[in-house]
Amino acid sequence: MLPATTRQITTHLAADGWLTARVEDAPLPAPAASQVVVQVEAAPINPSDLGLLFGPADVEAGEFTPGMVRARMGDGALRAFAARVGMTLPVGNEGAGTVIAAGSDAAAQALVGRRVAAFVGGMYAQHRVIEAADCLLLPDDVSAREGAAAFVNPLTALAFVETMHAEGHKALIHTAAASNLGQMLHRICAEDGIPLVNVVRKPEQAELLRGLGAAHVVDSSAPTFRDDLVSAITATGATMAFDAVGGGTLLGQIMGAMEKAANSGGSFARYGSNSPKRGFIYGTLDPSPTVLNRNFGYVWDISGFLLAPMMEKLGAVARQRMHTRVARSLKTTFANHYKADVTLEAMLTREAVLDYNARATGAKYLVTPQG
Amino acid sequence: MLPATTRQITTHLAADGWLTARVEDAPLPAPAASQVVVQVEAAPINPSDLGLLFGPADVEAGEFTPGMVRARMGDGALRAFAARVGMTLPVGNEGAGTVIAAGSDAAAQALVGRRVAAFVGGMYAQHRVIEAADCLLLPDDVSAREGAAAFVNPLTALAFVETMHAEGHKALIHTAAASNLGQMLHRICAEDGIPLVNVVRKPEQAELLRGLGAAHVVDSSAPTFRDDLVSAITATGATMAFDAVGGGTLLGQIMGAMEKAANSGGSFARYGSNSPKRGFIYGTLDPSPTVLNRNFGYVWDISGFLLAPMMEKLGAVARQRMHTRVARSLKTTFANHYKADVTLEAMLTREAVLDYNARATGAKYLVTPQG
Repeated sequence: MLPATTRQITTHLAADGWLTARVEDAPLPAPAASQVVVQVEAAPINPSDLGLLFGPADVEAGEFTPGMVRARMGDGALRAFAARVGMTLPVGNEGAGTVIAAGSDAAAQALVGRRVAAFVGGMYAQHRVIEAADCLLLPDDVSAREGAAAFVNPLTALAFVETMHAEGHKALIHTAAASNLGQMLHRICAEDGIPLVNVVRKPEQAELLRGLGAAHVVDSSAPTFRDDLVSAITATGATMAFDAVGGGTLLGQIMGAMEKAANSGGSFARYGSNSPKRGFIYGTLDPSPTVLNRNFGYVWDISGFLLAPMMEKLGAVARQRMHTRVARSLKTTFANHYKADVTLEAMLTREAVLDYNARATGAKYLVTPQG
Repeated sequence: MLPATTRQITTHLAADGWLTARVEDAPLPAPAASQVVVQVEAAPINPSDLGLLFGPADVEAGEFTPGMVRARMGDGALRAFAARVGMTLPVGNEGAGTVIAAGSDAAAQALVGRRVAAFVGGMYAQHRVIEAADCLLLPDDVSAREGAAAFVNPLTALAFVETMHAEGHKALIHTAAASNLGQMLHRICAEDGIPLVNVVRKPEQAELLRGLGAAHVVDSSAPTFRDDLVSAITATGATMAFDAVGGGTLLGQIMGAMEKAANSGGSFARYGSNSPKRGFIYGTLDPSPTVLNRNFGYVWDISGFLLAPMMEKLGAVARQRMHTRVARSLKTTFANHYKADVTLEAMLTREAVLDYNARATGAKYLVTPQG
């Protein structure tokens, strides 16, 4: 017998700027013919989930009660989020679990009892009704924990490499490079023979990556950062950067270092080099404004990077290639590490929220709704 | 008889940060078979010329002597300009004049006595030896003054429109819209039926453009700027902006307004709208850093815009179309207005330098080397 209700985490933004994230009971509908019911066993807390869950609300000053957080957004932030005022939104982009019931379609029935992963939102829940077609069937030896993050990080890292090939670049630069995603990108680039410049913010992160065999690691806290970056870019020929930080001067510094590397031949181009300088901002570890000093001429492109439209752009053949590669290597190339497991309720305690919402490298949490 | 020497303006940056711009005599070589000697009669001072002539040197505190300006660059600026230290560079991207001698090739001989324009650099000179193939033959009724600026502004404005078509956008936003270039773009868009949002910085500039028949004019100094911008973008459907300012928050505000217009249907996209938001920075009226608040999701692209590589990218067919259109309409669509004429010597007086180097709208100067 299916339960009549389930528990899930939602986020709600009121017109007065108060945001409420809470655990709540919700009816569990019977699956339609094409659907399955997944008992969610593991779901990661990615930075992209935090953007939805709390956004720019001030959780440090929030009110914490069991199963609930209330926090305020400033007026400027509220204006930017005006379109979601009044909405109650389920949270949790991706996760994995076991199919415990299914609709009448053969494709849905075939999944009963199997372990699957999905990237459909609302996965911070004990159960989730989803389309069978949206399920990624996990290999038998892959646990829900190992398969929980089979989409966001793996596909993002692979999309960096696919985009590099599609736009004709030969090497990459990555910031916040010691993150789960960064380590994954390091392994992919090592497997594929792609030179990668890893930019980190602390000496211990540099050590970690060197310990994993990374050849080019640059620490932005080092006094020699500017020169180190130019040297690494010169050594690798990297002209494309993916930046998780977003705010501050880091991406602009990288673009400036690309320009310096391009001009190192000694020639002077009066409006800057014609060498391509390509940057993407894919995260918001620093929500402050992006500051570009524009010391890199006029031949440059910086874009936002969002996984879903980028996957569309890469095309069906590339998408299939990416999914296949991920499913095959969830225990190795695409393995994740978690700092802590939390239940739905534990996820909304002050201690947990302030820790994972700081988005520190190495502090990724895993939600275990059955725990 | 050709003169043995000519006079020209050069700029030199020394290793200690002192920049020297001056009028100097230089040998005038005899033209090779494929070349002509142009007696330069008129050459505009464009912002792109000022970048080469003075760069970020502090001309306010400069030393002015007849035919010479000396000014210092700060250490940061000097580092960015390291590649040109020690070089003496002629200045003046474009200009027009009369061919007074030519090499033996028929194509060169055919130009003797004719009025031509060229975009080859070094045009702040009494004479300039150039390839016949680089000459744009001016129609008989077009004076050197009218043909002096037949490249930079006209081709830039046309390249905006060509880029808009090539990337599939339907309407444009332009900043510093009351400039010579802005008025030109207004006339092109009016002829072609392309909706254009003109962003200006002062009420009198808004008046000027409205007086020319511009339908969408937004003044960034108005308290209602933010809302006016969203309204104009909504009315026109503009999703591509060309920004001459570069520094500060203006381009970011425009991108944010595009996002707001895209979301005005009331739907909420959690990582921002998937509607394209496209910006180009083509100038540096404000040399301070570009500041992007990133309140426009993750689907956006901002690029530098430099005329020469963009013309390459647009392709030979588009280039021919653009040159033909310019030559046909130099007295109308592509007409320029100048605040003052200056000789080579007068160009380097304190009064002139401080006026044109402020890059104020409506303060374009014309250099008349024969004057």
